[in-house]
Amino acid sequence: MSSKPSIPKGTRDFSTDEMLRREYIFETIKKVFRLYGYQPIETPAMENLTTLLGKYGDEGDKLLFRILNSGDFLSSVSDDELGKREYGKLSSRICEKGLRYDLTVPFARYVVQHRDEIVFPFKRYQIQPVWRADRPQKGRYREFFQCDVDVVGSDSLLNEYELIKIIDDIFKRFGIATVVKINNRKVLAGIAEYIGESDRILDITVAIDKIDKIGIDAVNSELREKGVSSSAIKKLQPVLKLKGSNGTKLNTLERRLINSAIGKKGIDELKKLFGYIKKTKLTTKVELDLTLARGLNYYTGAIIEVKAKDIEIGSICGGGRYDNLTGVFGMEGVSGVGISFGADRIYDVLNQQNQFNEIKVSSTEVLLVNSGDNDLWYILNILDKLRNYNVSTELYPDYAKIKKQKTYAGAKKIPFIIFLEGNDIANNVFTIRNMTSGVEEKVKLSAIDLFVKEEFSSSS
Amino acid sequence: MSSKPSIPKGTRDFSTDEMLRREYIFETIKKVFRLYGYQPIETPAMENLTTLLGKYGDEGDKLLFRILNSGDFLSSVSDDELGKREYGKLSSRICEKGLRYDLTVPFARYVVQHRDEIVFPFKRYQIQPVWRADRPQKGRYREFFQCDVDVVGSDSLLNEYELIKIIDDIFKRFGIATVVKINNRKVLAGIAEYIGESDRILDITVAIDKIDKIGIDAVNSELREKGVSSSAIKKLQPVLKLKGSNGTKLNTLERRLINSAIGKKGIDELKKLFGYIKKTKLTTKVELDLTLARGLNYYTGAIIEVKAKDIEIGSICGGGRYDNLTGVFGMEGVSGVGISFGADRIYDVLNQQNQFNEIKVSSTEVLLVNSGDNDLWYILNILDKLRNYNVSTELYPDYAKIKKQKTYAGAKKIPFIIFLEGNDIANNVFTIRNMTSGVEEKVKLSAIDLFVKEEFSSSS
Repeated sequence: MSSKPSIPKGTRDFSTDEMLRREYIFETIKKVFRLYGYQPIETPAMENLTTLLGKYGDEGDKLLFRILNSGDFLSSVSDDELGKREYGKLSSRICEKGLRYDLTVPFARYVVQHRDEIVFPFKRYQIQPVWRADRPQKGRYREFFQCDVDVVGSDSLLNEYELIKIIDDIFKRFGIATVVKINNRKVLAGIAEYIGESDRILDITVAIDKIDKIGIDAVNSELREKGVSSSAIKKLQPVLKLKGSNGTKLNTLERRLINSAIGKKGIDELKKLFGYIKKTKLTTKVELDLTLARGLNYYTGAIIEVKAKDIEIGSICGGGRYDNLTGVFGMEGVSGVGISFGADRIYDVLNQQNQFNEIKVSSTEVLLVNSGDNDLWYILNILDKLRNYNVSTELYPDYAKIKKQKTYAGAKKIPFIIFLEGNDIANNVFTIRNMTSGVEEKVKLSAIDLFVKEEFSSSS
Repeated sequence: MSSKPSIPKGTRDFSTDEMLRREYIFETIKKVFRLYGYQPIETPAMENLTTLLGKYGDEGDKLLFRILNSGDFLSSVSDDELGKREYGKLSSRICEKGLRYDLTVPFARYVVQHRDEIVFPFKRYQIQPVWRADRPQKGRYREFFQCDVDVVGSDSLLNEYELIKIIDDIFKRFGIATVVKINNRKVLAGIAEYIGESDRILDITVAIDKIDKIGIDAVNSELREKGVSSSAIKKLQPVLKLKGSNGTKLNTLERRLINSAIGKKGIDELKKLFGYIKKTKLTTKVELDLTLARGLNYYTGAIIEVKAKDIEIGSICGGGRYDNLTGVFGMEGVSGVGISFGADRIYDVLNQQNQFNEIKVSSTEVLLVNSGDNDLWYILNILDKLRNYNVSTELYPDYAKIKKQKTYAGAKKIPFIIFLEGNDIANNVFTIRNMTSGVEEKVKLSAIDLFVKEEFSSSS
């Protein structure tokens, strides 16, 4: 096999540089999740297809990666079934497992399966890859990481408040300017009721969710195509065009939705949430956006989406409240709310803002030059000492020309090299070179602790 | 669907407690890998089957999880092929991708694919799950994590030395007493040559690898069954029973292998490696073990295995040198050496030694009691301040009885709760209760920084 090996389309290798940057992203997000009292869980990459199927709509079912049963996967398939070549049906007969499509459904499955061990309200975070057989394109992958944070078993709006604080805290740490958009599914239901099209709430929310992408005229055409009446569309226009502060919008809307019980409830929830938000200091702006629907049918209350300011990249975080997610697994009455951070898009934003420059590109701080087996006892002693002081150090493994070893240090962006020259061993010293400034100095082996404290204080 | 949901056999959910313990394991291992100058990479869960097939033997091929092609996976399969029901052949026609089986082959693929970007010698670590369709049993899973550390592009024995240092450092940090066993594949080849059975080196190494499990007599029977001559088996016995120090064993062996060039080379490598080891201080014992083969055909030099002392659990780390691993992907002459830590077994050992007691079981340090919306402005202020001082804090989201909130803190093992009583707000104080000692005290809001420093100094 002499052709260059490759990986499946839509998947990626992560190099050392990329990994260090990605770890910075994940570590920052994790740190904040924990600061807010959320704790980690993990679920297996493979779930039973019975767990996954039917949870993401027909389109989602098609995008599931299915795992072929081990052994004779055809043993229970009849010749007749096989002959029909109905690949959709057949795939369910020869595959029992699939790769997880998101972290929300496995989480709901987890909650139901472990309900007796869990302390409610259950605050969990989960950072793992998910897989979708989507058509790969720029910024869309078949394997990507989601960073989810959810609380289930409490319908208090303080949970929504806390999630917004988490959003604010995380993007402040990243130095990404954001706008948080908030809506409420009950308000959307109220609007559908108000315009006399309660039955079409799904079509309506899916359509108005596209308003940012396709514009108001195209949304109206779509509504007409879906069979929404002209009078209803007309009645909808002022709502779509609401202007002013969050308070003004809410008040105007409240007057219009006066006859919709569910609409009124949604307005009350939003008012309460914005009331909480007023009690704290946020860096990000929080904006009521009635056109925000996120196309996800399982939301029942708050809908949340975060956009990066100044950078065109779509949403970098989003989520909402769901009252019925564990219901499909036989556990009713558990309300939850959660958000998901898009690690890949955050990576792209930080990259565009050149913010990775400040992140260390090498974890190795010192390279010890290999000057042959005769000096080795002395070199290994320095190596042990530096590592005991927690300085990340490597010894060049081969006895090569110093130029080659310096090139290695340069390519790996290692900031210091240590080598021996002249009477260094006799004098009980070593020579250290700062690879950026080119300055060299002698350090006494007996004073290595002081030297480490001065040069590598950050590493302890 | 009302039956309790489940996960595929051989897979696991990890609860919050388990996650915190697992993270401690991974973080410790990572920290040491970095201290020794190794850097992370990651590869996709799915690899092309052309990358995986044929690398793990026939048995390994059967244990690969294959992913069904998306869409009409039957489109290129003829009726004739389908009718034959040859599931082995058919699986290759309907699946192009599989889940990775280990981290070594994806790493070799990575090195060849990215050879132009990589700085050699390339020191990388990789901590990711792998999947095997093995029969699940106690301690054996279908999804499990491997922690691999390898260096490729250098044949210096200092790399083996460094890996042994890493082993020593990691298990010292874990407080696990270990023995490191070392062998060399060239010595095994030399022995096969010495007993006149060079052609049967594979059979011989596979058989003597089992000596610990099945005993010397069973090994001899197996050798006979494989067709090794009686005189060869007789000649082998003193070698299997070699006793004494590493030096004594090596010297004895050297005399016997005097006519085997490859055996002599293996002896020289071992002598050099033990020479390096003598120059440093190790906590673990390093032992020459001529019966160690690890059944892996791709090893060409050192073979390394680590066993926990006092605990029956098999090997908790192992690896070796391979000279030809990238050759199958078209890149010759790249020597590598690496080891893999078994996170699950390390978890089990730490658990058996009750060493997890010292690990924090909750990441939340303070629970703020919810006493209703009237006090909320004051409570949210305390919450913000504590988090600004990096104290992991949660607010109970619902306005529930204090008893219920205390029970929650108890169940989550949160060490402190803060609540308001009497004139706390008027006096600008709050009340904090140590959940272990039951001691309560008043803290001035203006002195919260001092309070944090005293109580939570570890968290900053």
